Amino acid sequence: MHKRNIKLTIAYDGFDYCGWQTQPNKPTIQGTIESAIERLTNQKIQITGASRTDSGVSALGQTANFIIDSPIPTANFKNALNNILPDEIAIIDTQEVLDDFNSRFDAESKEYQYTIYTGKNKPVMNCRHCWFYPYNLDVEAMSEAAKLLIGTKDFKAFASAGDERDNTIRTVFDCHLNCIDQTITFTICGNGFLYNMVRNIVGTLTEIGKGKWQPNYINDIIQSKDRSKAGILAPAQGLCLMSIKYSCLDKE
Amino acid sequence: MHKRNIKLTIAYDGFDYCGWQTQPNKPTIQGTIESAIERLTNQKIQITGASRTDSGVSALGQTANFIIDSPIPTANFKNALNNILPDEIAIIDTQEVLDDFNSRFDAESKEYQYTIYTGKNKPVMNCRHCWFYPYNLDVEAMSEAAKLLIGTKDFKAFASAGDERDNTIRTVFDCHLNCIDQTITFTICGNGFLYNMVRNIVGTLTEIGKGKWQPNYINDIIQSKDRSKAGILAPAQGLCLMSIKYSCLDKE
Repeated sequence: MHKRNIKLTIAYDGFDYCGWQTQPNKPTIQGTIESAIERLTNQKIQITGASRTDSGVSALGQTANFIIDSPIPTANFKNALNNILPDEIAIIDTQEVLDDFNSRFDAESKEYQYTIYTGKNKPVMNCRHCWFYPYNLDVEAMSEAAKLLIGTKDFKAFASAGDERDNTIRTVFDCHLNCIDQTITFTICGNGFLYNMVRNIVGTLTEIGKGKWQPNYINDIIQSKDRSKAGILAPAQGLCLMSIKYSCLDKE
Repeated sequence: MHKRNIKLTIAYDGFDYCGWQTQPNKPTIQGTIESAIERLTNQKIQITGASRTDSGVSALGQTANFIIDSPIPTANFKNALNNILPDEIAIIDTQEVLDDFNSRFDAESKEYQYTIYTGKNKPVMNCRHCWFYPYNLDVEAMSEAAKLLIGTKDFKAFASAGDERDNTIRTVFDCHLNCIDQTITFTICGNGFLYNMVRNIVGTLTEIGKGKWQPNYINDIIQSKDRSKAGILAPAQGLCLMSIKYSCLDKE
């Protein structure tokens, strides 16, 4: 036997969890998966997640990795862990990766989606996964504003207090909206995001959609580097981490 | 002021509730709505639901009615109650009806939908509203069997123990399946359903879909009037009450 580095692709309904990161006496995604691995292997290991999603945020393509010395074949981890994990957490894929692979630091791009429901009635069947915002929104104005976010910029104005990172420059590769019936889906793909950046952007876009600001006011906000210039923080449950890409992994 | 009879159309995510019917010290849909009406009007009233959905079953078109002497205009009940109710329960519509209208006994037809997810990975974002059944199902065979349920028949074989009604004859107006990607949706509309009838039918259809029985075995089950001849009981969370129709109400 030898130590292996195993990468997990994970989906979860995060509504009832206190976010990704392990916290004492609180249900977290990381903690729940670590407990499942411990139950399976009798080894106490720590997993490294690519994105420390907040309380209430869901994922369809989170990634994580962990080092383990176990006879269990990599592919078998998927079914074995899924049998232990609660219904809201699923291992989508397992892959053995090189020793030095780190799901957090090797991530080259992350894609998030945010769902806004603008219908008049509370969306009871989807209330855990969207922002119920029963107002008319100008999706064209919001799309025009979204385009202005694409590029390498200092996004400090969209970072909530609590972001410890000095470098607030990030590259947004793509950013657009789709609207089907009364559901607006906002998609953003970038090389990384500041604390609450996606939710602050969504909150700002809704204020543009309501006509409070013109689309190009986004440029003024970015230039200000001042959080107080941006819009409200959109609630967590509309956010979903869709995928994380690694150029160092051949398959992807 | 005079006593009015108010009909509610209600949607709910029933996953975390112990069914429709009020039970002491348990969260129920009826109990939660009654508490909301009491908070709003300071009157303790009882609402009559058209369908006493089981624990874990959801609804997009449940109906209920209650008699009240209150100055609140009928239309205002909707927003006022929605502001009090939790996110998982929504009043979709309110309507003043004739004094003798009874949402349960006047119902002429009810439509239910049941969702089966046959993909390989746990559907974490929808695990509260479908049956995760990761098997290949022959949807054509299931559709053929579903057609045999249409008509006025004795459905005793599909009633779980606990159904107190003597008359087990019901009319199924329509019954069909849709399949999009890995999601199968079963729709059934009838003048009424026995206890667990829809879920027992769905469990039976999945066994036909897996090839255990031929489609026309449905006729044998019906003729037997014997519950033990039918298939397994499909889990509650795949079931959703879609709509209830009343010919006595002009608008509908």
